[in-house]
Amino acid sequence: MPSRYLSFRCSVPWLILLLQALLLLRSFFGFPGVSDTYSLSNSYPEFQDVNHMVIFGFGFFLMVLRRYGFSSTGFNFLLVVLGVQCSVLAEDLLVFFRGEQNELGLESLARAFVSVTAVVISTGAVLGRANPVQLIVMTLVELTFFSVSRYINETFLEVPEHLTGLHVYLFGAYFGLALASCFPEPPPGLDKNRSTPKSELFSVLGTVFVWVFWPSFNSVLPSFKMQAVLNTYLALAVSAVAAFMLSALTSKDGKFRMAQIRSAVLAGGVTVSYTAERIHQPWIAMLLGLLASATAILGSHCVQRCFNPALKLQDTSGVHFTFGLPAVLGAVAAVVLRVVEDGIDTRWNELSRLGYDAFVYIGAFCQTICTALITGLITGLILNIKLLKAVHVSKYFDDQFYWEVGF
Amino acid sequence: MPSRYLSFRCSVPWLILLLQALLLLRSFFGFPGVSDTYSLSNSYPEFQDVNHMVIFGFGFFLMVLRRYGFSSTGFNFLLVVLGVQCSVLAEDLLVFFRGEQNELGLESLARAFVSVTAVVISTGAVLGRANPVQLIVMTLVELTFFSVSRYINETFLEVPEHLTGLHVYLFGAYFGLALASCFPEPPPGLDKNRSTPKSELFSVLGTVFVWVFWPSFNSVLPSFKMQAVLNTYLALAVSAVAAFMLSALTSKDGKFRMAQIRSAVLAGGVTVSYTAERIHQPWIAMLLGLLASATAILGSHCVQRCFNPALKLQDTSGVHFTFGLPAVLGAVAAVVLRVVEDGIDTRWNELSRLGYDAFVYIGAFCQTICTALITGLITGLILNIKLLKAVHVSKYFDDQFYWEVGF
Amino acid sequence: MPSRYLSFRCSVPWLILLLQALLLLRSFFGFPGVSDTYSLSNSYPEFQDVNHMVIFGFGFFLMVLRRYGFSSTGFNFLLVVLGVQCSVLAEDLLVFFRGEQNELGLESLARAFVSVTAVVISTGAVLGRANPVQLIVMTLVELTFFSVSRYINETFLEVPEHLTGLHVYLFGAYFGLALASCFPEPPPGLDKNRSTPKSELFSVLGTVFVWVFWPSFNSVLPSFKMQAVLNTYLALAVSAVAAFMLSALTSKDGKFRMAQIRSAVLAGGVTVSYTAERIHQPWIAMLLGLLASATAILGSHCVQRCFNPALKLQDTSGVHFTFGLPAVLGAVAAVVLRVVEDGIDTRWNELSRLGYDAFVYIGAFCQTICTALITGLITGLILNIKLLKAVHVSKYFDDQFYWEVGF
Repeated sequence: MPSRYLSFRCSVPWLILLLQALLLLRSFFGFPGVSDTYSLSNSYPEFQDVNHMVIFGFGFFLMVLRRYGFSSTGFNFLLVVLGVQCSVLAEDLLVFFRGEQNELGLESLARAFVSVTAVVISTGAVLGRANPVQLIVMTLVELTFFSVSRYINETFLEVPEHLTGLHVYLFGAYFGLALASCFPEPPPGLDKNRSTPKSELFSVLGTVFVWVFWPSFNSVLPSFKMQAVLNTYLALAVSAVAAFMLSALTSKDGKFRMAQIRSAVLAGGVTVSYTAERIHQPWIAMLLGLLASATAILGSHCVQRCFNPALKLQDTSGVHFTFGLPAVLGAVAAVVLRVVEDGIDTRWNELSRLGYDAFVYIGAFCQTICTALITGLITGLILNIKLLKAVHVSKYFDDQFYWEVGF
Repeated sequence: MPSRYLSFRCSVPWLILLLQALLLLRSFFGFPGVSDTYSLSNSYPEFQDVNHMVIFGFGFFLMVLRRYGFSSTGFNFLLVVLGVQCSVLAEDLLVFFRGEQNELGLESLARAFVSVTAVVISTGAVLGRANPVQLIVMTLVELTFFSVSRYINETFLEVPEHLTGLHVYLFGAYFGLALASCFPEPPPGLDKNRSTPKSELFSVLGTVFVWVFWPSFNSVLPSFKMQAVLNTYLALAVSAVAAFMLSALTSKDGKFRMAQIRSAVLAGGVTVSYTAERIHQPWIAMLLGLLASATAILGSHCVQRCFNPALKLQDTSGVHFTFGLPAVLGAVAAVVLRVVEDGIDTRWNELSRLGYDAFVYIGAFCQTICTALITGLITGLILNIKLLKAVHVSKYFDDQFYWEVGF
Repeated sequence: MPSRYLSFRCSVPWLILLLQALLLLRSFFGFPGVSDTYSLSNSYPEFQDVNHMVIFGFGFFLMVLRRYGFSSTGFNFLLVVLGVQCSVLAEDLLVFFRGEQNELGLESLARAFVSVTAVVISTGAVLGRANPVQLIVMTLVELTFFSVSRYINETFLEVPEHLTGLHVYLFGAYFGLALASCFPEPPPGLDKNRSTPKSELFSVLGTVFVWVFWPSFNSVLPSFKMQAVLNTYLALAVSAVAAFMLSALTSKDGKFRMAQIRSAVLAGGVTVSYTAERIHQPWIAMLLGLLASATAILGSHCVQRCFNPALKLQDTSGVHFTFGLPAVLGAVAAVVLRVVEDGIDTRWNELSRLGYDAFVYIGAFCQTICTALITGLITGLILNIKLLKAVHVSKYFDDQFYWEVGF
């Protein structure tokens, strides 16, 4: 094995050490308000739920490849714990620019977990093809750009803070896709990017965890938590039912496909996230869940047969149709609901305000998606320079390249 | 493969679509009180626990067969999300008949989860032998009959509402048994209905989840929640200890049997459910746990050696001795405890009331078990008409018949 | 198979029965204050978390050996449910000696779970080599000695009650090590004490559970719960990041080792436990996490290459460097922090009090470690007398010796 492919191994620990030292230093000089926020005891369960969902749920959700179990869960774990710390730091800097004081508490950690989900989703797109150094650099760059994108939305478009946080699915999916387009394709004969029933079972285990904790996730940021929980649950339930239905309808002999179902089951939670706290009629949440599931399943057919081959893109765990398309649907639904809701009690002289509101929503959505695509592409090009480019295509999707498993 | 066996595949999606459309329509016209109940934030943790237990815990608890992992978890997931929606609808109709207004909140969803447990238990009896269409029809019919049985208990026998809900184990187990008796037996040479150590491990994983969340489950309906939690925990702990003891005692060379232990460990939770909120002495709960475990283990010997062969019954995952017999024991214990408790501070002229109370308890218990057996038998006969009968015995217990697993 | 090796099987059930009968009897005559404490509803989530972590998390954390999955989770389950009951009893007796009244509630059960962790850790050291009878006897003896050790610390050294409880890691690890030194070594050619990727994956699953619930565990006993939660989380996060870094640095070709990472990821939680509720600066918790991880990884090299071979010790799942060394580090850190904290606002005439405080801390720490080592050694010798000595070295690490798995 030529030394070029080994070089990343020397840099991983030092990169992590550098980062951790920076974070330690920051925490040494900072967080003056820590002791005050130690009393926020009622945020502990939601912190725990989100923690569980992101580390355990997504870690096992990503475990689809037959020989990539250790890396899927292990690297997800590493990126999340590193990313949460970076995210707290990034938010801290943002708050500093505004001249406010930041506080470190469970609530800010839970918010950091939400941001880190963007990284987890992007990881899914390049799963098995990016090495740890690339993933760590990606984590840093992505969290920074996501913070910038949120900052633009909040400051220039005046979108409420908790809504900008929910763009995490959109940003994560399209950043990951743009990134994935820069990675070389695996050779066609490779069978390591397939799944086995055993790896699928672990993935189902993770999916069920993500599904169960999703209501907690969608209710971390909003103010009307219970409404967010109930609507998210309804959307998830309907999208789970619809996932089975549509998977049987679209397969050639009426069989179910686990990979599709895993995606579509979660799609409802993505779609309803923007509007979960403002929906007052259960049937709207249920309808959104149904549409989300349909988007995910039909999207998976279109994306895998037309879109990806056309662009020579490989999206290992299908983040485009699991998170990307349902998030677009959710953003559209948010605009429609807003317009309809406001439209009902609007006079003629307020129509301009209504148009402005819709414009702001669409603007924030387009800004997020564009930033994600452009920064993802740039990041992808940077990650594939010779300095970092470490994994040969023949070593893709293989635990043995990173882990001592020959015991 | 003749087309007769494929026919169910065409009907599954349409059946699901029809149901989901009905549920959507209902939610469109209904649930006027939704927004009022969004504030019930303290019911979220228990909803979450029950949700986790029924979907994740039972899903993996049922994963005992070597080639039936996807179907065990997947179909359990589908039936639960579908069943919860149907159960909310059924309760809604029941409330409507009484002339009250129903409200959709986390509490009513948690109660729906309890009802759906009957379906999950019944599924265990026909695991691997019923196809999805049969299971979906079964879900609908069983939830309807369970609602009717609860309605009779509440209205005519004046049993308190939360006690009627706890008949879910009894109903589920005997409905499932009656159902299973109508399905043809698998051929004797078939080895697909065995378990492997790997599938057992997943099942242990699910069992531990169910065990841990059982106190939450038993305390959803009662008013004295903490008492229910503590007594359930004590009963579960003792039944877990006794399970190991009795399994070693009854096996021929003192070895433990995982299948027995998985059943007996949970039996304590079933038995104590009726009385959990009213036991004031820990030793009673502990004794019930011990008896429950003994019932499950001795029952498994009797049932598997004498009862099942005599009736030509096949109970795939042993719901008779895991849920049925411990529930009968629990019902008997409830009557005894009631009589003893009341008997202590009863004068002679109140003896008739005491007898009446006992009569009501026994009546409710007999009514539930009879309804379950009769309706289960009828449902079993309906499910095996030619229209729905889809799985040939040679295709039993096989994921490949329902899932695309050839990757 | 000579009958000598079978003899344990006859004694297991009777031993369990005897114990359970004793516990039942005790509960029959006791716990007068039960009904009063049923209202402590806010302790339910933390009880649930600790319950989940000890039974599920540690059960699967220990599942590292390729052929020992059933025994790892099954015996852990048995020992925990038995140990919790014994621990409640032991605490009950202790309280009785002080002339107070004990109460049985979720809080006392959660405290019992903390004590039982010592047993779980010790089990890890003799995993696969002790038979159930030996493990049950060990559980009883260890819980008794741990109670005695706590009693000495509380009464003679006047250490606060919740700190004595946190010596559980220290006691468990060194008791287990002393115990393990009395068991005969497995033959060198045996490959059953290796792990497979599949068993490692289950172990990762358990580790993540333990990691996620550790903040709840460390905050059960202290009074300043939120501070304990936040500091534990920070320490765990840093130790997880450092685990990956150090594992790559110390392996010969820069690869990660899952076994090391599993240990080091948890080390932060062990180290920070003593001081979690009193750290006011996040960077201290983070630094402790970093040091803990370094201790665990460097310790694993030293222990496995020098210490264990020199002492002919076999520590199956590495409890020495996972729990022992980080706990020593934590105890040292507790003394240093106490001295520094008090030193800042101490006048000259109070220096003697400062010295006394440090002396008490060090005394409690030495007393715990000595008691653990001595009683562990004695217990080990007792367990290996002919009466109990049941497992031949050739039957080590094998499920088939205890479980009917030939299906």
